[in-house]
Amino acid sequence: MKRIEDYVHIVGRDEVEAIEELAERVKGASVVHINSTAYGGGVAEILKNLIPLAQSVGLRAEWRVMKAPPQFFNVTKAIHHGLQGNMTIEISDEMKKTYLKVNDENASLLEPSGDVVVVHDYQPLPLINHRRGDKWVWRCHIDTSKPNPRVWSFIKPFVLKYDAAVFSLERYIPRDLVGIKVFVSHPSIDPLSDKNKLLSLSEVEKVLNRFDVDPDRPIIGQVARFDPWKDPLGVIDAYRLAREKIPELQLLLVGSFAHDDPEGVEWYKKTVEYASSMRDVHILTNIDGVEDLEVNAFQRSFTVGLQLSTKEGFGLAVTEALWKGVPVVARRAGGIPLQVIDGETGFLVQTAEEAAEKIVYLVKRPWVARAMGENGREHVRRNFLITRDLKDYLRMHIDLVGK
Amino acid sequence: MKRIEDYVHIVGRDEVEAIEELAERVKGASVVHINSTAYGGGVAEILKNLIPLAQSVGLRAEWRVMKAPPQFFNVTKAIHHGLQGNMTIEISDEMKKTYLKVNDENASLLEPSGDVVVVHDYQPLPLINHRRGDKWVWRCHIDTSKPNPRVWSFIKPFVLKYDAAVFSLERYIPRDLVGIKVFVSHPSIDPLSDKNKLLSLSEVEKVLNRFDVDPDRPIIGQVARFDPWKDPLGVIDAYRLAREKIPELQLLLVGSFAHDDPEGVEWYKKTVEYASSMRDVHILTNIDGVEDLEVNAFQRSFTVGLQLSTKEGFGLAVTEALWKGVPVVARRAGGIPLQVIDGETGFLVQTAEEAAEKIVYLVKRPWVARAMGENGREHVRRNFLITRDLKDYLRMHIDLVGK
Repeated sequence: MKRIEDYVHIVGRDEVEAIEELAERVKGASVVHINSTAYGGGVAEILKNLIPLAQSVGLRAEWRVMKAPPQFFNVTKAIHHGLQGNMTIEISDEMKKTYLKVNDENASLLEPSGDVVVVHDYQPLPLINHRRGDKWVWRCHIDTSKPNPRVWSFIKPFVLKYDAAVFSLERYIPRDLVGIKVFVSHPSIDPLSDKNKLLSLSEVEKVLNRFDVDPDRPIIGQVARFDPWKDPLGVIDAYRLAREKIPELQLLLVGSFAHDDPEGVEWYKKTVEYASSMRDVHILTNIDGVEDLEVNAFQRSFTVGLQLSTKEGFGLAVTEALWKGVPVVARRAGGIPLQVIDGETGFLVQTAEEAAEKIVYLVKRPWVARAMGENGREHVRRNFLITRDLKDYLRMHIDLVGK
Repeated sequence: MKRIEDYVHIVGRDEVEAIEELAERVKGASVVHINSTAYGGGVAEILKNLIPLAQSVGLRAEWRVMKAPPQFFNVTKAIHHGLQGNMTIEISDEMKKTYLKVNDENASLLEPSGDVVVVHDYQPLPLINHRRGDKWVWRCHIDTSKPNPRVWSFIKPFVLKYDAAVFSLERYIPRDLVGIKVFVSHPSIDPLSDKNKLLSLSEVEKVLNRFDVDPDRPIIGQVARFDPWKDPLGVIDAYRLAREKIPELQLLLVGSFAHDDPEGVEWYKKTVEYASSMRDVHILTNIDGVEDLEVNAFQRSFTVGLQLSTKEGFGLAVTEALWKGVPVVARRAGGIPLQVIDGETGFLVQTAEEAAEKIVYLVKRPWVARAMGENGREHVRRNFLITRDLKDYLRMHIDLVGK
């Protein structure tokens, strides 16, 4: 269904031809991708878009999703926190047992094989214990620059069994990771997906009306899971301060609950409570019927996008907003500083007060918001679209199994 | 100085290669362009940009400007009004004598010759009386769809001596013009000119500050000569009405006095007087130091662009605004409906009341303004950039003198 030619009008013919030349060298290679969820979060998003595109240029790529009980995800959430640097995390022997057992089961269930097996994030990492003769790649999507040493020493032996590891940012590569190939590939968005495709004005307005958002007053918002690291309460603080200057301002907090995210519900409730006495704050999730198309519409309605995360993998919600011409006010977390170039595509801030100040500035200066939005869109076009991701992906496959 | 390669990042490699292929077929041809003013108005603008670009792809193109006293321009202004349909205009024998005499003098002064001579508009039209063996083209930049018959019958015999005529719009071709080749070529803007090139935010802000425009409040504006057909008073009416809803709104009326436009000063004064009791109306011209770069900056500051002209040639000021991502509210005159697609790149209106309503709508809905601005920019990229104009120009030369 996806064809690389459909991207010519977005990235230009030169870029598409470059992709086709690379693809020629790995044509017919079979690639199996494995992750832990078919829905929610950046990884599923990337796979949903990248795999059909890889197929369209001649790879025999497929995607398999782990099956696992809730207690498994409690373990992997702890691993996640630990890898991202939470130093208080302990992984008990009981937890390790659950982690390995579910992976053993999935090895027989998923039967990963092919010229290349790409394992995404930490959940299916131990599948490598069941490797056959193929090339195995670990694609890490999170910030592992300063992992909790206890968690990392548990995880690292699995990683070392792989042929290669791919990180989203140069600085996410753990310093002691030696002995396997390492690639860096920034994540990307698909400009033709439901989340990012062009919408008509009436489609956007219909969504705003459906969720009681006033199309005639300025809208700001953050799209993020409900999670302490996304700082939804900080977003509400920034909004409250900005509203002192712009009383008609509206706030949208848009998130989804992923199946592997048991903390989401708790933080969602905390956020709703924190905003409970305020008018014009809309907190919306997939439970309310917010799917990709609605997120797309909401982002297109933003005068200013927010991403006040204190930790981010890469921050694809920022990429999405910038691609829609929305300037973004964000904290300097994860991949955000690669995207939000201070004063060019938005503003980097530290506190809710600073965020509020920049929100007011951008709402009062539509000409600045437009210019920054245009810069952001071009920045994403050159660096963070799926076509660039596909090029990295093809180069890695050429390195591993290429002709 | 101009190189066609510099446009690759704007229009894509395919488009530039298409131009180079066409240029190959007229390489080395000498082309002399003649018009009546080196400064002011759309024609000088086009020549300033198109000729260096034609040179860069291998034509030996040059540009010569008529020399003429003020009374000549009074005559040509009358001809202008007549050709555009003012039925009360009379061209006296005295006026005809002035018109022809100045052209005779210019024939010896300019010595037009070459493989192709391109004569722009009505001022140098009678130069054809001195034609030598070359191909002569009349490039008409105004609306001659319903000319005053007395004026047209004076003008037409000159036109018929040409090999070809080029009009900006299909419907501008006078119905009784037969016997010569006729081409249609929409005008264009140069995205790399001072008027249109990308400016930094600080450059824009510096210009706003220099002219006491508040960068923190929404700005709307019209760029046009001071002329009854541009309806500057209607713009002020629309602004006054819009300000009832948006009290912080500011209006910019930006124009220049061209040397061949004696009515300009009178209408400038009339406009200043009409706005005299109103705050936040800025009426600015080249006399105040507004040159191309300042116009560029002002257009980039607009939340909404206006073009309430009742008559237009093509409306390049609209093209310029759309290229800068500014949605435009305009009357359905000349080439405007080709550019302002109602509800897509702006709004077409008839009255000042309607204009005010659309201004308010767009200022209150930044997300609509952004989407329409983006549509407008893409519309201009595909249809009204100098690269497309150059293609038309090359095709015409291929038709006349091509290999």
